[in-house]
Amino acid sequence: MSNCIVAQSGGPSSVINATVAGIVKANQMNPIYDHVYGGLNGIEGILKERFVDLTKMTEHENLVLRQTPSSALGSCRYKLKRDNVSDFEKIFSIMEKYDIETMFYTGGNDSMDTVAALSEYAERNNIKNRRFVGCPKTIDNDLMQTDHAPGFASSAKFIATTALQCWQDVNVYPASRKEVFILETMGRDAGWLAASACLSGIVDVLIVPEYPFEKQRVLQEIRKCIEEKSKCFVVVSEGAHYEDGMYIAAGEAMNDLFGHAVLGGAGKALEQMILEAGVSSRCKVQDLSSAQRCHASEQSLVDVTESFRLGMSAHMRSADPKFTGKMVGIRRRTDVEEYDVEFFAVEADKVANFVRNFPEEWLLPDYKGVTQEAIDYLKPLIQGSPQLIMKDGLPEQTVPYYMRGEEIEKK
Amino acid sequence: MSNCIVAQSGGPSSVINATVAGIVKANQMNPIYDHVYGGLNGIEGILKERFVDLTKMTEHENLVLRQTPSSALGSCRYKLKRDNVSDFEKIFSIMEKYDIETMFYTGGNDSMDTVAALSEYAERNNIKNRRFVGCPKTIDNDLMQTDHAPGFASSAKFIATTALQCWQDVNVYPASRKEVFILETMGRDAGWLAASACLSGIVDVLIVPEYPFEKQRVLQEIRKCIEEKSKCFVVVSEGAHYEDGMYIAAGEAMNDLFGHAVLGGAGKALEQMILEAGVSSRCKVQDLSSAQRCHASEQSLVDVTESFRLGMSAHMRSADPKFTGKMVGIRRRTDVEEYDVEFFAVEADKVANFVRNFPEEWLLPDYKGVTQEAIDYLKPLIQGSPQLIMKDGLPEQTVPYYMRGEEIEKK
Repeated sequence: MSNCIVAQSGGPSSVINATVAGIVKANQMNPIYDHVYGGLNGIEGILKERFVDLTKMTEHENLVLRQTPSSALGSCRYKLKRDNVSDFEKIFSIMEKYDIETMFYTGGNDSMDTVAALSEYAERNNIKNRRFVGCPKTIDNDLMQTDHAPGFASSAKFIATTALQCWQDVNVYPASRKEVFILETMGRDAGWLAASACLSGIVDVLIVPEYPFEKQRVLQEIRKCIEEKSKCFVVVSEGAHYEDGMYIAAGEAMNDLFGHAVLGGAGKALEQMILEAGVSSRCKVQDLSSAQRCHASEQSLVDVTESFRLGMSAHMRSADPKFTGKMVGIRRRTDVEEYDVEFFAVEADKVANFVRNFPEEWLLPDYKGVTQEAIDYLKPLIQGSPQLIMKDGLPEQTVPYYMRGEEIEKK
Repeated sequence: MSNCIVAQSGGPSSVINATVAGIVKANQMNPIYDHVYGGLNGIEGILKERFVDLTKMTEHENLVLRQTPSSALGSCRYKLKRDNVSDFEKIFSIMEKYDIETMFYTGGNDSMDTVAALSEYAERNNIKNRRFVGCPKTIDNDLMQTDHAPGFASSAKFIATTALQCWQDVNVYPASRKEVFILETMGRDAGWLAASACLSGIVDVLIVPEYPFEKQRVLQEIRKCIEEKSKCFVVVSEGAHYEDGMYIAAGEAMNDLFGHAVLGGAGKALEQMILEAGVSSRCKVQDLSSAQRCHASEQSLVDVTESFRLGMSAHMRSADPKFTGKMVGIRRRTDVEEYDVEFFAVEADKVANFVRNFPEEWLLPDYKGVTQEAIDYLKPLIQGSPQLIMKDGLPEQTVPYYMRGEEIEKK
């Protein structure tokens, strides 16, 4: 038998490690491969032959890995360029040296492009027995083909939970105290994360990249809300922008006052507009920043389970010698009433380099949030909470493999 | 029989409602009072006779209330001034009208001053059968007399959990990518919250108000850390300040660049110093903002249980006609090996208007974090996680009483 390798790329999520755990577990149950290697820091570490051996991971390690956020194998931002032939040659020679038949690569758009490029190269050069399988992950949910990507739902759940709880906070003082609360989420191009805050049922104003920012209309909506109930809860994507594409975080409001646009995000920019326009004299900004992508202590059970099962499905499919250049996606079943999914394969190049936006028809007019259809799509994804394994009052964490000094000897 | 009233004051916490739940539950088990009223928006609502009747709260409502952050009865920032006699007269006349013998007031320093002032007034004017009992709450943990205050531990747990998980995030890229992560916590005068991040075991540099900020020394520590392991995890209190008392958030770094000191917090100010000094070209700031005081979905079980039991203890003690002007505090038992607490009473005026700092002897030199003694103090407080009652994938929340339109008719 030969071996396989799994590596991770792109930005962290709360459940990306569960896909690795699924691949490892699947191979323990059905040993298609002698060894399941982990490549450290994505393609960058593979090029340097920085491997660990995950084959015999214990059940406890596997469970802890599933609740550990970010990439336990390390990540990279390295992009394989199709004209950089030496990188390709090197990867295939390393795979041969370590007898690696299948490379599983978890990531977003760029990672699927890597999967496509490597399998195209193999086909073009008539290289047999090297397979490349993509496993999607992105908190942004902007991947094509798949109903949703692992990672999104846990971030969505954390955002909605935080919105719900911050809303209790912002309303606590008497009506005489007028206050705007601004929750800023990630999402540079797509509004999925900001929109998911609407699951809390308390969002008054929603600003996403798919619905251009018109300053006066937004301020008017906030003003109306303040007049009506003295508080206003606003959710804004970091990528909120004007019709012409200019991010509000880089907009006039910031430049006027500070002569510098980098510091403030969309939330801070909006706060400044609100204060300047006298819409409210009190305004608070909560930028969820890194926490929204690594708060694995409040994963969605649906999300982490799907991420794990997706890894198992990818492993099983890879037994087929012709299974390469594919991403394993998630399809929502339409033949059953309760929410359920099935996994399927799609060409990785149909995913790479596209962006899937939040559907415009799911946005209510005047920044008023999302339609019931959107809620119906989002709600099943955030259901359930896994039982956390705690240690000294905090969630137990996998020590990152790239810090362990357990790399296997180079051949 | 007569009645009692409970009201809440000051800033929100994750477990403040559990004290109310404890008072209500105690009166159901041992009905000292005919009615347990809730005063809306603290002393401000009491002066306006805005009351709800909590007496018959169901078990389910009681459980949900315990996991609902912020003040379900609403809060206020109104401070009773001792020379404003008309306020005092009004409160006592209202208490008489509604036959309220005991007022429970949850809050921090100012609230304990209110408790002291009201009971002094009663004594001075020889008014019998009106008792005032303080129940501590503050995430800042800066109250005197009590070993700790309900609310602190849940915030501490959330901060440490977030630190642990963000650390996984910041380390994920290869060593070639140098990066400083700055976690900003609340704590204007006391460093308890920032220090609690050290429970995660991953804090490299800790900056608290109790240890004056020396710019060059701090930058030197961060530089050393980056040189050693390419990443540096910094935790800073919002109230970090220079030797002369100037907050770093209001410091030169901000003013130089932006001519305006309000926008950035301590984290942003430190980021600017790091970038300007070239200590690292990458720096990320996570300001936990409101989330750290209202993230009740990750309460410490110890904290919420103590908050509930403290309410029960206050209720029981209030059966004594002479029990007034007191705060019920928490004492750590020294006669048992396992962590356990007992409740005790202390004069409210011994609490009011003092600040309890994080002990300087618990700080390691050179901003290197806290001693084992500090960890031994903090660790028992964050243990355990309550079973959350979920609804549609999110924690079920009490609809704030001040929004329900259930106020009892005015007499």
